[in-house]
Amino acid sequence: MSPKITVELLRQLRQAMKNSKYITEPIQAYIIPSGDAHQSEYIAPCDCRREFICGFNGSAGTAIVTEQHAALWTDGRYFLQASQQMDNNWTLMKMGLKETPSQEDWLISVLPENSKVGVDPWIIAADQWKNMSKALSSAGHSLVAVQDNLIDAIWEDRPARPSTKLIALGLKYTGLTWQDKITALRGKMAERKISWFVVTALDEIAWLFNLRGSDIEYNPVFFTYAIISIRNIRLFVDSKRLLDPVVREHLELDSPSKPELTIQCFPYESVYTELQAVCAALAHKDKMWICDKASCALTQVIPKAHRSAIPYTPLCLAKAVKNPTEIQGMKMAHIKDAVALCELFAWLEKEIPKGTVTEISAADKAEELRSQQKDFVGLSFPTISSVGPNGAIIHYRPLPETNRTLSLNEVYLIDSGAQYLDGTTDVTRTVHFGTPSDYEKECFTYVLKGHIAVSAAVFPNGTKGHLLDSFARAALWDSGLDYLHGTGHGVGCFLNVHEGPCGISYKTFADEPLEAGMIVSDEPGYYEDGSFGIRIENVVLVIPAKTKYNYRNRGSLTFEPLTLVPIQLKMINTDLLTQKERDWVNDYHKKCRETVGAELERQGRKEALDWLIRETQPIV
Amino acid sequence: MSPKITVELLRQLRQAMKNSKYITEPIQAYIIPSGDAHQSEYIAPCDCRREFICGFNGSAGTAIVTEQHAALWTDGRYFLQASQQMDNNWTLMKMGLKETPSQEDWLISVLPENSKVGVDPWIIAADQWKNMSKALSSAGHSLVAVQDNLIDAIWEDRPARPSTKLIALGLKYTGLTWQDKITALRGKMAERKISWFVVTALDEIAWLFNLRGSDIEYNPVFFTYAIISIRNIRLFVDSKRLLDPVVREHLELDSPSKPELTIQCFPYESVYTELQAVCAALAHKDKMWICDKASCALTQVIPKAHRSAIPYTPLCLAKAVKNPTEIQGMKMAHIKDAVALCELFAWLEKEIPKGTVTEISAADKAEELRSQQKDFVGLSFPTISSVGPNGAIIHYRPLPETNRTLSLNEVYLIDSGAQYLDGTTDVTRTVHFGTPSDYEKECFTYVLKGHIAVSAAVFPNGTKGHLLDSFARAALWDSGLDYLHGTGHGVGCFLNVHEGPCGISYKTFADEPLEAGMIVSDEPGYYEDGSFGIRIENVVLVIPAKTKYNYRNRGSLTFEPLTLVPIQLKMINTDLLTQKERDWVNDYHKKCRETVGAELERQGRKEALDWLIRETQPIV
Repeated sequence: MSPKITVELLRQLRQAMKNSKYITEPIQAYIIPSGDAHQSEYIAPCDCRREFICGFNGSAGTAIVTEQHAALWTDGRYFLQASQQMDNNWTLMKMGLKETPSQEDWLISVLPENSKVGVDPWIIAADQWKNMSKALSSAGHSLVAVQDNLIDAIWEDRPARPSTKLIALGLKYTGLTWQDKITALRGKMAERKISWFVVTALDEIAWLFNLRGSDIEYNPVFFTYAIISIRNIRLFVDSKRLLDPVVREHLELDSPSKPELTIQCFPYESVYTELQAVCAALAHKDKMWICDKASCALTQVIPKAHRSAIPYTPLCLAKAVKNPTEIQGMKMAHIKDAVALCELFAWLEKEIPKGTVTEISAADKAEELRSQQKDFVGLSFPTISSVGPNGAIIHYRPLPETNRTLSLNEVYLIDSGAQYLDGTTDVTRTVHFGTPSDYEKECFTYVLKGHIAVSAAVFPNGTKGHLLDSFARAALWDSGLDYLHGTGHGVGCFLNVHEGPCGISYKTFADEPLEAGMIVSDEPGYYEDGSFGIRIENVVLVIPAKTKYNYRNRGSLTFEPLTLVPIQLKMINTDLLTQKERDWVNDYHKKCRETVGAELERQGRKEALDWLIRETQPIV
Repeated sequence: MSPKITVELLRQLRQAMKNSKYITEPIQAYIIPSGDAHQSEYIAPCDCRREFICGFNGSAGTAIVTEQHAALWTDGRYFLQASQQMDNNWTLMKMGLKETPSQEDWLISVLPENSKVGVDPWIIAADQWKNMSKALSSAGHSLVAVQDNLIDAIWEDRPARPSTKLIALGLKYTGLTWQDKITALRGKMAERKISWFVVTALDEIAWLFNLRGSDIEYNPVFFTYAIISIRNIRLFVDSKRLLDPVVREHLELDSPSKPELTIQCFPYESVYTELQAVCAALAHKDKMWICDKASCALTQVIPKAHRSAIPYTPLCLAKAVKNPTEIQGMKMAHIKDAVALCELFAWLEKEIPKGTVTEISAADKAEELRSQQKDFVGLSFPTISSVGPNGAIIHYRPLPETNRTLSLNEVYLIDSGAQYLDGTTDVTRTVHFGTPSDYEKECFTYVLKGHIAVSAAVFPNGTKGHLLDSFARAALWDSGLDYLHGTGHGVGCFLNVHEGPCGISYKTFADEPLEAGMIVSDEPGYYEDGSFGIRIENVVLVIPAKTKYNYRNRGSLTFEPLTLVPIQLKMINTDLLTQKERDWVNDYHKKCRETVGAELERQGRKEALDWLIRETQPIV
């Protein structure tokens, strides 16, 4: 991977920072966050501004350019990747390390007095704006909104915003009509005396209206906004997309059943002016919800007296707790996904000795096998297919120039997932096709102990996910090891593979308590730079747990694995496992054999079935 | 315990809430926090306003009185106690339960439109003021500062503010002179470009100046404020206290060594006007530190442009990391404390069968035995001496009307500690003098497993204490049990038994990362209302841990128990322990026997030594 040459781009950006065509007064620094106007994690090519300016294309990171410096902040998943993708005009700021300054502290340390720091108000979240603005003001600087995006100004062949075909999902997949969802939402609004709600997150709107799109690779969403009141529904979306008769019927655009369920459609771009109009007509006591992670631009349209900024929306929470139809769909999707992965591993075992399988061809094969499964739509994120040292690049994506050949001598890590009409998958397995070293096995076993500690944890109703994070690390910590990423994220149902508001992380973000029906990943890891990477990831469903006692009638929860792909026994040092952990592995493998085995048999995939049976033999 | 009758007091308070003598406009609600003007946890009798109005005398709780309602918020430690101490004019709001509204939400639900809610700005912290004010404003109400405290207005025989003799501590106890501490503090201020620092926490000032007092029972502090600049030191303290020649010499009041180490003394009450004068003379770029937990009254004196509100002060952090002299002192204090407790338990074993020992007499005996130890000053908190069902009242304090007799049939829990000139102790042991039931043993063993899981935890440098909290609960959770309090708090060195900024709790308050030299408690528990309470508490020192590997050279930490009192083997179901846990118990008991045994021998306390040797036999 060779770094992007950014000398000329930085020169142009620094000129734009002083150009009165874009700004009234010169700015001394310009912040380039990684999101889009919806604060999406995955973004469309037209929104990859941070990648355009610095070359680093990981999913998380913020670039800041001053007259003298250019720096990029990213987290432990991306330290290696970012250092390889950026040229030496850029300083890598490793978040999470003690010596790394925050963006605010760094700006304050490098800026001349009374500086102006610019940012596009559409791509900075309101809460980030607030924090940054406060920190800068306290040091005599100011944060200013630059309406014209300065990256767009210097980006010559910037792609157009996509507008793909919409898919309307029926009850069979969603379990609830969009009308039911609107009614439930309005119930929550009434409970809190809220009369308006500005929805900006793409997955929340897709979920609410039971619609999907493909504007953003891997995430089945579409560019849209919604403004919901107790009586009205305003949907902002490219009007061409609403010509499709299936979509028109789904949304009842031509014959609404009830006045309060009539959707008024507006062009995507008109949200700003329409929100201004709505706000101008607000009654004295009207309160409007907007997520504090929504764009600063839209948030500031709402007068403070009417604005009720919330850390996550009721849609975010409703979407996180899957209904029985969604749970059933997720289970089916994971069985189909396991079929494809069993086939992949059986195929890899046969092909690797020939020396012809590479990280890229293995990833392609995984996609090909998944695409044969019913209701396959696409991948849920770029496959991480990594051999040996590449495995230590946590969000590695194989490229022709980094592509390694799978062999009998190195650890192979594959983190992959797919979108099916009935659900979304995300699974990581780490395997060795020859003989792993004792050290590799030792590290793998610590990671497995952490994975089991979370998966088998029993905890009271109302527990937040961050309280479980240390369970995943205890075995690694005991030996002085750790990993620099969270342990789990929420997973959507035929939606984004990363979703809030729950998760399992040492970062105590505003995570909501876990409740039955939520779905998260459980993915501890260990990464040895330059050598190998290990991660064991299952998607797990929060379910009620039966316990001997029931303190204060609170009830308990635990997890049920949805992912049903064998964990390679060859990588385990069974001496390091407790009896309880051995039982967990055996029970898990029994379930894989029974459930996935039946489906492999049904699909007549004999070789994969043989592989599954062999790989799920009990540990004695 | 009979509840306090509050009908007449509430009538008087509600009158005061409308009385123009105290307030310009009537208020519809009045908040009575539990702290003093220094936001102390333990307070002097003159500051026990919340107890005066409602009767509940626990260490944490906030009362709110409206025209119609009176409600008290407190946490799980105090549910039973509060319900017993308050009459039925009061509603108990059980914090931490899902159905309990926050103070803000409750106020909004009961207040008429456009209400005014009053509070004394000296006894509400600035950050609490901010949150409360914001929540009330968003619902159309307002929070107003009532300068005259309305409780004081109706409190006829309110005690005077104490002004006890000051003790000057020498280097032998402190390890650092106050001059060195001031210089180190100024270094931190310069680093952050801070020119002034308003210190309001009593223990921070006591630590900084190596002075102690006894204005507040159990906490060796004195009423004071300090304002420190790069060049000046202003100390606010009752001038009578500075007549003592030992104190004058200690503070170099008559012959300061250097101009910048000259202390200017002011009366305690003049802090407000003096701070106003300092603020009036601030230069354009001057920044002033104040803790965001300082009083709203003092915080608002500092103009916003000059104010740098911090979640904890550098003194709080410096005080938390004990120096070698303090660590040595804490170790000595804990050995002496263990001597007293070994004697207590040996005595209890002999006396209980006679049926003459009560909760109160056992607590008195513990105090008597502690007072025989060198450099004993007093208790560090009211002894919790509780038998059977009283043990389930987490912060129980035996009173004549609740006093139970210790017997061979019930669990006995004693949580106690002392102040010695060289250190502060805090230890809980739960014992049975007859034969515990299987259920009591089972619960005790889960609590012990949690205690060991924290005490033996190995974790990376930079880990925050809240990440360890779940380790203490995992064994209880597995069986559907839990406890409704945090797992540990910072412990001062001959200072407050509860101190920040570190701790171990499921609440993710702004806790600072643990570092070597910090001292915290490790005290999981289990409480069965109406039956028994179990808690096992050691004070533990954070120390570097040796690990097999050292990921990214971060280094690891673990804990060393300072408390050295045997854990009753009779209460343990050893079948529920792992081999590692058995080894921990045996190693711990070996250390108790060797270290405390030597001191018992030196002091010639034969019976206690015999008891210690018997109670520390290894589990096989």
